[in-house]
Amino acid sequence: MIDSDFPPEWSAQKKAQARSDFLKKLSLESHRFYAGKMQTLPRVPVGDPDWWNVWYTPGISALSTAIRADNEASFALSSRGNLVAVVSDSTRVLGDGDCTPAGGLGVMEGKALLMKYLGAVDAVALCADTRHKDGSPDPDKLIEFVKMIQPSFGAINLEDISQPNCYRVLDELQDACDIPVWHDDAQGTACVTLAALLNALLLAEKNLEDARIVFIGAGAANSTVARFIIQAGGKPENIILFDANGALYAGRNDIPPEFYRQRELCKTTNPRNIQDPAEALRGADVLIALSAPGPNRIPADWIRNMRDRPIVFACANPIPELWPADAKEAGAFIVATGRGDFPNQVNNALCFPGILKGALAVRARKITDSMAIRCAKALAEYSRQRGIDPDHIIAAINEPDLFAYEAGAVAEVAVQEHNARVIRTFDEVYKHTKKDIEAVHNLVEDMQNRGHIETFPLKIVDSIKEEIINVYKNQ
Amino acid sequence: MIDSDFPPEWSAQKKAQARSDFLKKLSLESHRFYAGKMQTLPRVPVGDPDWWNVWYTPGISALSTAIRADNEASFALSSRGNLVAVVSDSTRVLGDGDCTPAGGLGVMEGKALLMKYLGAVDAVALCADTRHKDGSPDPDKLIEFVKMIQPSFGAINLEDISQPNCYRVLDELQDACDIPVWHDDAQGTACVTLAALLNALLLAEKNLEDARIVFIGAGAANSTVARFIIQAGGKPENIILFDANGALYAGRNDIPPEFYRQRELCKTTNPRNIQDPAEALRGADVLIALSAPGPNRIPADWIRNMRDRPIVFACANPIPELWPADAKEAGAFIVATGRGDFPNQVNNALCFPGILKGALAVRARKITDSMAIRCAKALAEYSRQRGIDPDHIIAAINEPDLFAYEAGAVAEVAVQEHNARVIRTFDEVYKHTKKDIEAVHNLVEDMQNRGHIETFPLKIVDSIKEEIINVYKNQ
Repeated sequence: MIDSDFPPEWSAQKKAQARSDFLKKLSLESHRFYAGKMQTLPRVPVGDPDWWNVWYTPGISALSTAIRADNEASFALSSRGNLVAVVSDSTRVLGDGDCTPAGGLGVMEGKALLMKYLGAVDAVALCADTRHKDGSPDPDKLIEFVKMIQPSFGAINLEDISQPNCYRVLDELQDACDIPVWHDDAQGTACVTLAALLNALLLAEKNLEDARIVFIGAGAANSTVARFIIQAGGKPENIILFDANGALYAGRNDIPPEFYRQRELCKTTNPRNIQDPAEALRGADVLIALSAPGPNRIPADWIRNMRDRPIVFACANPIPELWPADAKEAGAFIVATGRGDFPNQVNNALCFPGILKGALAVRARKITDSMAIRCAKALAEYSRQRGIDPDHIIAAINEPDLFAYEAGAVAEVAVQEHNARVIRTFDEVYKHTKKDIEAVHNLVEDMQNRGHIETFPLKIVDSIKEEIINVYKNQ
Repeated sequence: MIDSDFPPEWSAQKKAQARSDFLKKLSLESHRFYAGKMQTLPRVPVGDPDWWNVWYTPGISALSTAIRADNEASFALSSRGNLVAVVSDSTRVLGDGDCTPAGGLGVMEGKALLMKYLGAVDAVALCADTRHKDGSPDPDKLIEFVKMIQPSFGAINLEDISQPNCYRVLDELQDACDIPVWHDDAQGTACVTLAALLNALLLAEKNLEDARIVFIGAGAANSTVARFIIQAGGKPENIILFDANGALYAGRNDIPPEFYRQRELCKTTNPRNIQDPAEALRGADVLIALSAPGPNRIPADWIRNMRDRPIVFACANPIPELWPADAKEAGAFIVATGRGDFPNQVNNALCFPGILKGALAVRARKITDSMAIRCAKALAEYSRQRGIDPDHIIAAINEPDLFAYEAGAVAEVAVQEHNARVIRTFDEVYKHTKKDIEAVHNLVEDMQNRGHIETFPLKIVDSIKEEIINVYKNQ
C-alpha cells in the first residue's frame, strides 16, 4: 500500500520498517474510524411486527422447551451450530507478549473477521480476565471459563495463551468439552507448516520418512509441528529440536513437568544427543525456525551445510529469523516465512477457517490430530492441483474453494472417527461450505457497494503515508 | 398472522390458545430454517488483500500495545464500545422455568436481535453453564463469569436468572464491574411499568404521590417496580405488596436474607399490616400484578371496589392474571398487559435498547436507578408527545425515534452523575442513535430485498396453520 511511495534508494530493511510503522498507524486510525471490525446482524427477516411473536415471546417458548428436552437441538435451532468463540487470556498476543485481557481484542476480532470472510463461520472475540489477584494468568480459571461458555458455541478457538498454560488448557478442554477445542497458535500453525512442508519436500524430491528435520524453537507451535510431522510419517530419530537451553534429548532434566509436550519429544527425538545447531543442520534436509523475531538469528552458514536443495522455514513474526534473500544466497532451495510480502507465506489463516467449518458442518465433538493432519494434506493437495513451484508451495488465502475443500476433508475424518453428530459426505460439506462462503462474499460486497460499510478515506491513508515517509527520510 | 383463518365461532380463549400453539410451532420451524437468528459480519471493508495487514498482523500490533497502555482505548478501537453480552444461566427462561444452560439460547438471541434492530446495539447471547455439580445454579460462578468477560464488552444485560440469585448477582456485579450491568427482567420491567403508570395516572387525573398502589407478586420485577415508584415520588405507606405467603409488612419474618430487596420493602410499605388483597384493593388507585399466568387469578370483584378510574396492570405472561375484558367490565379505566395482542403492552423491549444505547454512547461505568427512572420518564414523555389515551398509554416498539430519545435522556443523567467516560449532550446522543438505528434498518432492509436474508416460505406457514386449525377443530 505504501511501497511505491518510498524513495527507491531506501534499503529493503528501511522500507520494511517504514511499511510496518505505516501499517500500525493505519491500523490504529482505521479501527478508530470504524469502531472495531465486527458487528452482529440478523439472519432472519425482521421489520414485520408479527414476527416478533415468533423470534421472541410467546413463540420462542417452543425453543426453550425443545432444547431443554434435548440439548443437541440447540445446534440446529440457534446460531450455536455455526458459531465459534475466539477465546484468549491475551497473555501472548502475537509478538507483543502479555497485553492485559482487553489488549487482545484487536487480534481476536481479526480472527473473527477471517473466520467469517474466509470460512463463513460466525465468531465472537472473548478476551477473558482469568488472572490471579497478583495479575498472573490462572489456567484453571481459563479452563473453567471455556467450560462455562460451552453451551453457547459450536466450537472454541483458543488463541494467544502463553506457555506452559496453553498445553494444559488445550488438553484438559479437549477432554472436558463436547465441542471442538482448537488452539490455533499450536495446531493451526502445525497444520499449515505440515502442508507447506509436504509440498516443499515434493518439489525437492525428498520424502517425509527420510527427511532430517531441525527445529529452532520448541514452543507451542514447533512442538506441535514436530508431533504432527511424526504422526504424518516423519521419523523422530531424524528430528532435533532446539529451545533456548539447547537441544531436546532423553537426558534433558531441566524441563518443568508443565512442558510435557516438550518432555515427550525429549524421549524420542535426537537419539545421538547433538547439541550444536550448526552440527545438527549439517546434512539436514529441513530447517523449521519458529523462535524469536530476527533478522540474523540464524547464520546463513548453517544453511550452506545442509543437504542438497535445503528447505528453510523462517517463520518468526514480524521479522523472520533470517531474511529470505540471505537464505537463498546460502543455497536454500525453498524459503517460507510468516509474512505475506515474501513468497510462501505460512499463515494459520490457510487452515483454521476450513478446519472449523468442517468440524461445525458435522457437529463434531472434537478436533483430533488426525482431523488436523487431514486438513494439512487437503491444503497441500489443493495447492498442488492449482500448481506449485519453489516460490508457491502453498495456496494463498484469496482462493475461496480451498476452505470448502478443507472443510469437506475434515468432516470426512470426523465421520470416519465417529466424532460427528451428523453424517455428511465430503461432497455435501464441500458444496454447502462453498455456497456459504459465496453468500458471505456477496453480502459483504453489497454492504460495501451500497454504503453500509464506508470506504476508508483516502485522505487519511495519504496523510499517514506522508507522516511516515517524513519520519524515515531523516533517518 | 393466523387470527383471520380461525372459524369465527371459536371463543376468544380457544383462539388465543390456538394462536399460541401456531406461534410456537412456527418459531421452531423458522429457527430451524434459518439456523438461529443472529450472525456476525464485518463493519470494515474486506476483500482487498492489502487490508488484511491492517486488520490483522502486522498492523494490528498497534492496537494490542495501545490498549495495553490504556485499557480504556479498547472502547474506541474494538467493537467493545457498542457491544452487549446478554448473559443468562437459563434458570428462569420467560415462563418456562429452568431450561438447562443451552435452553435459553432462543430467548437470549432474541434479545440480541431486538437490541440490534431497535437500538443499534451489537449483542451476543451467552448462556453460561454455572451450575454446581448437583445441577443447582451457583450465583458465585455466574458473578465470576461476568467479571471474566468484562474486558470484551461495553455492557452486560443479565436475563432470566431465578430468584433469589438474581438480586445478589446484579448487586455484586454493579459494584464489581466498571461497565453497566443491567438486569432486564427486574430493571427493564420496572422501567417500562413506571413509564406506563405515569401516563395512566395522568389520564386518570391522579398523581403518583397520593396513589394507593397494590402489587400482586413481589418477585424480582415487582419489587423493583415498587422501588422505582418510591424513588420517583410514590409514598411507601401507600403501597402494599403481596407474595405467595401474604402481604409484605414490618412483621414478616419468614423471608430469607437472600431476598433482601423484599425485606427492605417490608420495612416501609403496608404500615397498617393489611393482609387481605380484597381489603387492600378497596379504594386503591392502582393494581400491578406480575405474579403467575392467569386467567382468573385476580377476581374481578377486587377491581369493582377500587377507587374511581382504577388502573389495572395484569402483566403475567403468556396469560394475564385476568382477561382485560373482565377487568374493563369490572370498571377498570385502564388495563395494561404484557401481550402485544391487547392494548397497552408493557414490554421490556420499549426500554432496554434505549437505555443500553444511551449508556454505551457515553461509555457509562454503570446504570444507576436514576438513569433507569429517567429512561422511564423519557418513554412516558415520548409517548405523550405522540398522543396517549386509555388504550394507548405508551408507545409501541415500532417507533424508532423512541429509542434515540431514551438514549439521549439516559446519557444526560450518566454525564450529570459523573458516570460517563465521555461527555456528550442529549442532542448529540439522540442524533447519533437515530442515525445508527436508521443505518441498521437500511442494512437489514437491503439484506432482505437483495436475498441475503431469505423470505420464510409461505408454504410452511400455511401448512402449520392447517395443522393447528385441524387440531383445534375437534376440541
